[in-house]
Amino acid sequence: MNIKAPRGTADTLPEEAAKWQFVEETIKNICNRYHFEEIRTPLFEHTELFQRGVGDSTDIVQKEMYTFEDKGGRSLTLKPEGTAPVVRSFVEHKMHGNPKQPVKLYYFAQMFRYERPQKGRMRQLNQFGVEVMGSADPAVDAEVIDLAMTCYRELGLKSLKLVINSLGDKDSRESHRQALVDHFTPYKDELCSDCQTRLKQNPMRILDCKTDKDHPAMKDAPSVLDYLNEDSKAYFEKVKNYLSLMDIDYEVDANLVRGLDYYNHTAFEIMSEAEGFGAITTLAGGGRYNGLIEELGGPETPGIGFGMGLERLMMALEAENIEIPSGEDLDCFIVTVDDEADEASVQIIHDLRTNGIQVDRDYQDRKLKAQFKAADRYHAKYVLILGTTELKKKTINVKEMTTGDQVEVSLTELPGFLKGKLFRRKC
Amino acid sequence: MNIKAPRGTADTLPEEAAKWQFVEETIKNICNRYHFEEIRTPLFEHTELFQRGVGDSTDIVQKEMYTFEDKGGRSLTLKPEGTAPVVRSFVEHKMHGNPKQPVKLYYFAQMFRYERPQKGRMRQLNQFGVEVMGSADPAVDAEVIDLAMTCYRELGLKSLKLVINSLGDKDSRESHRQALVDHFTPYKDELCSDCQTRLKQNPMRILDCKTDKDHPAMKDAPSVLDYLNEDSKAYFEKVKNYLSLMDIDYEVDANLVRGLDYYNHTAFEIMSEAEGFGAITTLAGGGRYNGLIEELGGPETPGIGFGMGLERLMMALEAENIEIPSGEDLDCFIVTVDDEADEASVQIIHDLRTNGIQVDRDYQDRKLKAQFKAADRYHAKYVLILGTTELKKKTINVKEMTTGDQVEVSLTELPGFLKGKLFRRKC
Repeated sequence: MNIKAPRGTADTLPEEAAKWQFVEETIKNICNRYHFEEIRTPLFEHTELFQRGVGDSTDIVQKEMYTFEDKGGRSLTLKPEGTAPVVRSFVEHKMHGNPKQPVKLYYFAQMFRYERPQKGRMRQLNQFGVEVMGSADPAVDAEVIDLAMTCYRELGLKSLKLVINSLGDKDSRESHRQALVDHFTPYKDELCSDCQTRLKQNPMRILDCKTDKDHPAMKDAPSVLDYLNEDSKAYFEKVKNYLSLMDIDYEVDANLVRGLDYYNHTAFEIMSEAEGFGAITTLAGGGRYNGLIEELGGPETPGIGFGMGLERLMMALEAENIEIPSGEDLDCFIVTVDDEADEASVQIIHDLRTNGIQVDRDYQDRKLKAQFKAADRYHAKYVLILGTTELKKKTINVKEMTTGDQVEVSLTELPGFLKGKLFRRKC
Repeated sequence: MNIKAPRGTADTLPEEAAKWQFVEETIKNICNRYHFEEIRTPLFEHTELFQRGVGDSTDIVQKEMYTFEDKGGRSLTLKPEGTAPVVRSFVEHKMHGNPKQPVKLYYFAQMFRYERPQKGRMRQLNQFGVEVMGSADPAVDAEVIDLAMTCYRELGLKSLKLVINSLGDKDSRESHRQALVDHFTPYKDELCSDCQTRLKQNPMRILDCKTDKDHPAMKDAPSVLDYLNEDSKAYFEKVKNYLSLMDIDYEVDANLVRGLDYYNHTAFEIMSEAEGFGAITTLAGGGRYNGLIEELGGPETPGIGFGMGLERLMMALEAENIEIPSGEDLDCFIVTVDDEADEASVQIIHDLRTNGIQVDRDYQDRKLKAQFKAADRYHAKYVLILGTTELKKKTINVKEMTTGDQVEVSLTELPGFLKGKLFRRKC
């Protein structure tokens, strides 16, 4: 009987994990430069958080959540998205009272969505995201978009498309909403059942519908950009100007509405344009959500953020043939000629590791030749050969594998000798 | 209405998260030196995995698991421990066929146990662990223990106790089992109901019982060490000898049996002896589990590993007053005198960040004085002051906060100038 990983989940094996580490380190380093700090929230939340914070009418809440009762009868849900938990934490810990404003946070988190698994869409997925709460400055919108673009660029991606839109402030959204209702109501019976519901709950999301996308009424649907009031227009102009100042290319797409209910002002998505990347091209998406913090019990506080799918990022790197370092050659492998040397090697290895040197040995009771073969498999830079004679003299033979040069080094001098060789090389 | 984090879970806020990052980096670095590679497994597994891999009779499986059905009717369980998933992955990916043996893996994972929350025992907890599969060499047992001890020592812990035991091989365990049954059966009715069950299923775990620990029959219960056969004795002697060779102090405790069913040969625990650490002193525990891989559908393969609670580790660091770096001072904060400078700063900041420099600005529309105050709050090393005159000349004033020195630098030379100041300092 074999038990496999649950459908829609996958193991990340060492070679792949090394790539993930590299990507995560790169992103963490960028976050640090942009002066964002890490936050970690629990893996699950009270279900109500997502019903309120993501929106009852969204596909996520209606169809895709991993919801269960714990032994105490609480309804819990595995995180389906990253914003609501961070906002919940902001409110719970009263971060609006922190003298350092805005609060600039980033997270790496596992998310869970019960969907039909396909390439680039797993049930357990990894996301990197940021949230900035406490500032309504359009320069923050630009900074957040810049941060996302910088992550992709520094990892080497070139075929990227940034699409932005503005949904305007509350008043602008309301005018647009009314225009959409007026526009689509005559076609109501021709729309899919989801869109019929959306017409009441959130008509903007009709523009995003995959079923009705070819309906003739879509073409001349009222554009959100025509309903922006003066403040909202000025805000959007500033965001676009800041992006230009940073040499960040973008397209404006009035149909970009995003799946979540709570966005206003800036919305954006970043897509991969790499050939063969696949049908789902979105790499990251985000936007401003002034109002959400209030909705979740906090004081009126503006906020903006994005979520970046890391599986998608890995796919994009692959599609653009970008090589990521995955595991380096082993520093040292120790080879022992007999049981006595084998035993003595335990102390030597411990000593080297304490000195910061990476070293491994044979644990398979292999003959000398097979031990050398193992050293080769690990691409050992140095093979340390411990024989009976050497052990008596308290020395060891050090063979540099690239040159084949071999020298005898006293055991007391060994850590210093290897450090000199290895760490000079690394600088 | 305020929604809080679910009971038994907690947010890790930025200051704390920075400490976690430091601890994780330190441990990853040690794993690399010991030539262990990272593996990541899904957050949940088929429930059956833990029933088989941890043991139906354990408290974990019987009382503490977060088990739920997904929308497809699968019984899934949030990881309650780390070994079974890694072994499942080893079997699923046929790692026994990898020419590099043994397979040395480490993981950082979130675990979930439904227990009464208390200090150092949360429902969601973080664990670091390692698993070595494919070698029955006692030197591996010593290496694994050494790795755990090195993690604690390099982080600065001093008040540590290592306790080891041997449960022997299958035959030895069987003789001991029989002796325990013979010993405890006359007292059966005086034992707690759990122990009455254990007497049938796994009598060794009676020795671990908190309810019956003062029963007179406990004192002269047969010691596992008296039932080790010659091979098992020799194995244990080797492990102890290797530990001594590495200068690792240990105590032997014949009553150390660990909660899980599948251990054999070496078992160990590391405790904190720091004053005021609290009632639960165990920091890490592990042991050999030859047989488990077969149990989970793989070929006969020896294995050993440990799990280290990271919340407990953080508590131990606190109990020993060890300071962990948490967040550094900000490199640069830019202060702008008017709207024009404010707009221009977007480009300057972008440029500096692209050059690897950490920089932030005001996003609260603050007056000059308040901007300087914000810079102070972030402990900015350099404050960059952008005024109208400077902007025309394409320069900026750089103020070094420790000395108060101020110089005017041209914008084109700014990144190089700051790099020289900041990166020399860091070396």
